[in-house]
Amino acid sequence: MEKLFFNAHHSPMGAFASFTLGYKGAKGGLGQELVGPADQNVFIGIENATRDGWSALPFFEMANDDISRYDIEKELDEIKSNIEFFADNEISRDFGISTDTWRAGDLTFKLISPVFSMPDPTTADDIAMKLAVAPVILAEIEIDNRQGKTPRQAFFGYQGNDPYSAMRSVMKCDNAPFIGIGQGQGTLIATRKLNAHIGIGFTLKEVIEPDFVENLSCGIGGVGAITLETPAGEIGRYQVAIAFYRSGIVTSRLETSYYYTRYFKNIDAVVNFALDNFDIYLERAVAAERMINDRGLNAEQHFMLAHAVRSYYGSTQLLRQADNEPLWVVNEGEYRMMNTFDLTVDQLFFETKMNPWTVKNELDMFVSRYSYVDKVRFPGDETEYPGGISFTHDMGVANVFARPEYSSYELFGLDGCFSHMTHEQLVNWILCGSVYYEATQDIDWLNNNLQIWQDCFASMCNRDNPDPDKRNGIMSLDSIRCRGGAEITTYDSLDQSLGQARNNIYMAVKCFAAYLAMEKVFGEQHLTELAVAAGKQAERCADTLLAHVTAEGYIPAVIDEDNDSRIIPVVEGLVFPYFNGCSAALDKNGRFGALISALKTHLETVLVPRVCLFSDGRWKLSSTSNNSWLSKTYLCQFVAQQILGLPPDPVADKGHCQQLLDDENSYFAWSDQMVDGIAKGSKYYPRGVTSILWLEYNKQHEV
Amino acid sequence: MEKLFFNAHHSPMGAFASFTLGYKGAKGGLGQELVGPADQNVFIGIENATRDGWSALPFFEMANDDISRYDIEKELDEIKSNIEFFADNEISRDFGISTDTWRAGDLTFKLISPVFSMPDPTTADDIAMKLAVAPVILAEIEIDNRQGKTPRQAFFGYQGNDPYSAMRSVMKCDNAPFIGIGQGQGTLIATRKLNAHIGIGFTLKEVIEPDFVENLSCGIGGVGAITLETPAGEIGRYQVAIAFYRSGIVTSRLETSYYYTRYFKNIDAVVNFALDNFDIYLERAVAAERMINDRGLNAEQHFMLAHAVRSYYGSTQLLRQADNEPLWVVNEGEYRMMNTFDLTVDQLFFETKMNPWTVKNELDMFVSRYSYVDKVRFPGDETEYPGGISFTHDMGVANVFARPEYSSYELFGLDGCFSHMTHEQLVNWILCGSVYYEATQDIDWLNNNLQIWQDCFASMCNRDNPDPDKRNGIMSLDSIRCRGGAEITTYDSLDQSLGQARNNIYMAVKCFAAYLAMEKVFGEQHLTELAVAAGKQAERCADTLLAHVTAEGYIPAVIDEDNDSRIIPVVEGLVFPYFNGCSAALDKNGRFGALISALKTHLETVLVPRVCLFSDGRWKLSSTSNNSWLSKTYLCQFVAQQILGLPPDPVADKGHCQQLLDDENSYFAWSDQMVDGIAKGSKYYPRGVTSILWLEYNKQHEV
Repeated sequence: MEKLFFNAHHSPMGAFASFTLGYKGAKGGLGQELVGPADQNVFIGIENATRDGWSALPFFEMANDDISRYDIEKELDEIKSNIEFFADNEISRDFGISTDTWRAGDLTFKLISPVFSMPDPTTADDIAMKLAVAPVILAEIEIDNRQGKTPRQAFFGYQGNDPYSAMRSVMKCDNAPFIGIGQGQGTLIATRKLNAHIGIGFTLKEVIEPDFVENLSCGIGGVGAITLETPAGEIGRYQVAIAFYRSGIVTSRLETSYYYTRYFKNIDAVVNFALDNFDIYLERAVAAERMINDRGLNAEQHFMLAHAVRSYYGSTQLLRQADNEPLWVVNEGEYRMMNTFDLTVDQLFFETKMNPWTVKNELDMFVSRYSYVDKVRFPGDETEYPGGISFTHDMGVANVFARPEYSSYELFGLDGCFSHMTHEQLVNWILCGSVYYEATQDIDWLNNNLQIWQDCFASMCNRDNPDPDKRNGIMSLDSIRCRGGAEITTYDSLDQSLGQARNNIYMAVKCFAAYLAMEKVFGEQHLTELAVAAGKQAERCADTLLAHVTAEGYIPAVIDEDNDSRIIPVVEGLVFPYFNGCSAALDKNGRFGALISALKTHLETVLVPRVCLFSDGRWKLSSTSNNSWLSKTYLCQFVAQQILGLPPDPVADKGHCQQLLDDENSYFAWSDQMVDGIAKGSKYYPRGVTSILWLEYNKQHEV
Repeated sequence: MEKLFFNAHHSPMGAFASFTLGYKGAKGGLGQELVGPADQNVFIGIENATRDGWSALPFFEMANDDISRYDIEKELDEIKSNIEFFADNEISRDFGISTDTWRAGDLTFKLISPVFSMPDPTTADDIAMKLAVAPVILAEIEIDNRQGKTPRQAFFGYQGNDPYSAMRSVMKCDNAPFIGIGQGQGTLIATRKLNAHIGIGFTLKEVIEPDFVENLSCGIGGVGAITLETPAGEIGRYQVAIAFYRSGIVTSRLETSYYYTRYFKNIDAVVNFALDNFDIYLERAVAAERMINDRGLNAEQHFMLAHAVRSYYGSTQLLRQADNEPLWVVNEGEYRMMNTFDLTVDQLFFETKMNPWTVKNELDMFVSRYSYVDKVRFPGDETEYPGGISFTHDMGVANVFARPEYSSYELFGLDGCFSHMTHEQLVNWILCGSVYYEATQDIDWLNNNLQIWQDCFASMCNRDNPDPDKRNGIMSLDSIRCRGGAEITTYDSLDQSLGQARNNIYMAVKCFAAYLAMEKVFGEQHLTELAVAAGKQAERCADTLLAHVTAEGYIPAVIDEDNDSRIIPVVEGLVFPYFNGCSAALDKNGRFGALISALKTHLETVLVPRVCLFSDGRWKLSSTSNNSWLSKTYLCQFVAQQILGLPPDPVADKGHCQQLLDDENSYFAWSDQMVDGIAKGSKYYPRGVTSILWLEYNKQHEV
C-alpha cells in the first residue's frame, strides 16, 4: 500500500489487548479492553549520526510536560527540543498479517504479533498454551551504525494513560532478568540487552538525555522509554517484549479471569517467557505470513485480510471460569459486546480454519446459558403461536455477562435497531454447528447436541407458519419478545431492505442453507423423517424465492411487503453449503440449480452502477442505503466469485481498501460500517476476517 | 456554611476510593485511585407529587445519549425531558465529619462515611477489621409521601466512566441477597428493599420511566439507577450501600493487594456485609460527629476539620503484602505519592489520635526500605564529609513503589522543586517516632529502633558541622545527592524563605524539637552521654536563633544568607514538644523561655497586614510569597493559640474557609496550596487533618 500512516492492531491472542500503531500523533498505544485506540504518545526514534539530535517516527505529540502541576509558580521555559520527526518520504512500512516493519534512516522497527492456532485448553499441553495465550507481542529494533564513528542510541517508549497507576520501571537493581518500563501492572515493555538503559521522566528529552543518570529512576513523570546503544561500526539488534496483563476477576455476573493468569502470575512472568521464546515467535511469524503470501491475492486483498485478522485478535478474550473451563469471547470492536452471534457466524470461517474448538466453545455457551424459548406472532395480530428455541444476540458487553436467556443488546417492543434477532440467531446456531461438524467430524459434539438440532428445526418451522401446510420456507412470524414490534437482522442500522428479518430474502437464503444442513445431519443420524422434512423446507424456501424473481431478474429484498430494494447479501447464505458438506446444492445443474442460477442472475442484475455499486466501483449492499459493510462485502465477493462464478472485481477491492485507508477512517484500524465511505459505526472491529474466505480462490497452492 | 455546592469526599477507610459529591454538574462520582473527582453523572431525585415529572439534585449533565453510536443513521429527536433540577433555594445540606445530608422537597439523601479507629490488623479480630476495612460507604434515602395520594418513586444512580468495563445490574433473578447497579467489578450501589427496581439504559429517563420493564436489563447503556417506590401516606426509608473494589495485585515493584481482599472476595460480598451492618455504621457515624461537635470550634473550624478528615480518608490505602503484613499508605492527593514523609509528619496528630499503629507502620517501612546513608557537602565546596542515615521523600507514586533507598520524587542536581529533602525527612522520622512513643509507650518499638535513633542523631549532627566545635544546632551542609545543588523542604514550590532547607529557621525549630526528643529518649534509655549531647544541640539551636532576632523582633527566614523574608512556620516545630513529652521546654519561664518568648514576639511581629496576613485576614506563610498552605496554617494557628498564647483569629478562619468554598476551588474538595486564594497545587489533598489539633483547645470537654 502506498499509504503509510494507518492504525493497525498488534495484539496477543485472547488478551483483549492491542498495541495499536500507525496513525500520526498520539493516536495509538497500549490498550486493554478499550473501545478504540489508547491515544497515547508512542516514542520510537534514533539518535542522528551527527549526534546533534534525534529523529523519530511521528507517533507522539510534542507537548508540554506537567511539571507545572507540582512546581506551581514556576514559569516554564519553552524547552527547545532537538527531537524531530522523520519526513514522510524517509519512512517505509512493510505490513503483514503478523509482522509490521517500519524503516527510517538507520532504524528498523519491526513488530511481531502471534498469529497461529490457539490450542484447545482442555487438551493442550502447558508449553503450547503458554505460547498461545501469553499476553504479549514482540518488537525487533535494529540500528545500522556500520557507517557511524560513535555509538548511537535508539529509543522505544510510551506515555501511558491508565487512570489508576503510574508509569514504572524495572531497573537493573530490581534484579529481574530484564529491564523495562511500564504502567502499573497492566502494560510493560522490556528487553534483556545490557547496553540498554531505561528511564521515567516528565518528558522524552529527560529520559534520553538525562542530566544525571540517577534521575532516570524518577517516578512521577508520565514518560517511560528504553534507550539502546549500538557501538560504532556495528548493527545492533534488540529484542523487546510488549506485554499486557490484568489480574483477578475481570468479568461480572459470570465471574472469570483471563486464561493466561493460569500460566503467568504477573506481567513480569509474561515478558520473561516471551524473551525466552523470542525465536519461536519469530518462526511462527514467518509461517503466518506464508499462510497469506503467494496465494494469488491482489495487493488490496492481501492488505485487507492481514489488517482484518489483526483487528480480530485485538478483540479476542480467552477467559477462565472457576473450574478452569475456558470461555472464548470475541468482543465486538468499539461496542465490546461479547460473542455477538451474528458476528460469530461470519468469523466462523476464520475460527474453523485456525482453531475450531472456539466455535464449539461459543456454540455450547449459547446452548447452556444464552438459549431461550419463546412464542411467536404474526404482524398486527396478538394471537400467540408456539415458537421454540433460539439464542441471544450476544453474551454481554464490556466484561459484563448478560443474565441467562437474555442479551445485553436486545430490547422489547421495537422494530428497528436494538430489537430482537431471534430468528437470525437461531439460524446462525445451525449454520455454525454444521460448519464446525463438517470441519471436525466431532461426532461427540453432534450427539450431545442432536436434540438441540431438532429443537432448532421445530423452532424454524414454527416461525415459518403454525400451519405446516402453509409453510413456504421463509420466516413469517416475529418473536413475542418484540411485543408487536418486529425482529431485525444483523444489519440493524440499515433500512428495511436488510434490517427487517421477516420475509427478508437475505434471511431466506440463510434459512435455506440451515434446512439443507439439517437435512444432511438428520439423514446421517438416521432421523429420516426429520431429514425429509428439512429437505422439504429447503425446497419450499427455494420455490418461494424463485416465485418472486422479477422480470428484470432480481428478487426484491423483502417479499410480499411492498419493498423493491435490491440487495447483494441474498447470496450470503450460499457460503454455508460450500463448507458444511452440502456443496452439491450449489451445482447450477443440480437439485437447486434453478435457485443458484436465479441468484447468479440476481447478482449480475444488481451489481451495476447506481444499484448495488457506488460510483467508484465499491459494492453497495443495498440499493436503498448508503450504509455498506465491508465484512459482508468480503463474504459476498467470495460467494460471487467462488460459488456463482462471477469474475474477480479488483476495482472494488481497490475501493474497499481505499476506504479503510481514508485519512479519518484509518485511525480506527479495520472498521465495518461505511456510510458514503466514512466509518460511522462498527469501528475498530473484528468481523473483517470473512476475508479469510479469499484463500479458497487458490486453494491448490495451500501447503 | 451558607455555600451548598462544594465537592466533598465520602470515603471508606484505606480503600483509596471516594464517592465525591457536592459540586454542580458531572463533577463527582465513584472514583478509585484517581487524581481528582471522577467527573461522572450522579442521579439523585424524586418523582413530583403531581406525578408529571421528576426533581433532582443538580449533579448531572442533561446530555445526549450515545444511541447514535449504534444506530448510526438515525436522526435523534431531542427528547423533551421531564426531569428538572431542584432550585438552589429548595435544597439544604447538613455537612458533618461522617454524615452529609441533602434535603430537597420530600427527599432526604444522607451519606454516611466510616470515621472511626482503624484497628491494628496484626492484633484485631475479624469482625472489627471487616467493619473498618470494608470498602463501602452508606446512604439513607427518605421519601416523605405522607401527603401523597399515590405512590412516589425516588432514584439514585450514576453513569460510570471506568474505561474498561460496562455498567451492570444485579437483578432479582441473579439471586443475590440484594439488587443493585454498578460498573464492572469496581463500583456497586445496592439495596435490599423489595419495592426497589433497577435498570441500565442509555438515559436516565429510560431507566426511571421504562417503556417495557424487561428493557431495564438492557446492558449497553451507560446509565444505571435504583428506583425506590413509597406508597401513598407513608415515609419510605431505604438503606443503600455504595461499594468499591479492586482485586488482585494493585501495586508494582513491591506487589500488594488491598487489605480488604483478605475479608471480601468481591464487591458483592462487600455490599452484603455493609447492608448487614448498616445500623452499626449509623451508630459509629453518630459517635464520629460527637467527636467534633460541641468542642468549642467555630463554624468555620468545624467545617474545615470535617472536610479535611474526609479528604484524608479518600487518600488512604491499607495494603496487604504476601505474608498478610499490613502496609498503611496515605496517597498524596492529586499527586498520589505514597506516604510522602513530610505529609506523614503533619498527619501524625490525626493518626496518633485515631490509630497510632499506622504511624509505627509508616516509620518501620521508612527504616526497612526507604532509609539511606549519604555524605554531605558545604555549598560551593566539593569536599565530602560524613553524613549518615536519612529517609526518602516518599515510598512511590500511584500504586508504584519506589526502589529501596529512593523516592519517586527526589532528583539529583537541583536546588528547587524535586530536589532532595534529606535533612527534613531525617528530622521527620525522629519527630514522628517521639510522638508515637509518647502516645503509646510502645517500649518494644523503641528498643527495636534505638540504634536508628542514635544513627539519626549522628546524622543530624554531621549535617550541622563536621567539626563538633563549630556546630550551631542548624543545618549547614547539603546531601551529596544534590550534586552541588541544595536540599529543599516540604515547601517545595515556595521561594527560598521556606523552600531552602539549609540555615532555614523553619527547619531549625523542627531540629530543635528533634534534639529535645532525643535528649529525653536517650536519657530515659540511660544513654546519658547522648542525652547530654542532644540537649546541647537543642541549646545551640536555640542560641543561634536568638542570636538572629532582629531589632524589629523577627528572625529572618534564612539566616546568614542575605535573606530577610518573614515566615510564620518558624513556630511549627513547637507542636512536637507539646505531644512528645517535652512540654516543659515550652514554658516561657523555663529552660528555653527565651526562645519561646522570641518566637511569640516573632509571630506577633509578622502576623500583621502586608507582612504575613493577606488583606482579608488570611494567614500568609511567607512575607515574600503569595503561595500559602492551609494545612500548615492550621498547625501554626494551633501553636500560636495553644502554645504561644495568641488570641483566636476567627477572621482568618473565615477567610480560610471561604477559600475552600470558592466557586472553582471547591471542585477539588479540600486543597492545600493556595496562590492568591486559588487552589493551584496540592489539590484533593489529605494534609488538612492538622486541623485535628484544634480539638486540644477545649480538651476538658472530651469524653
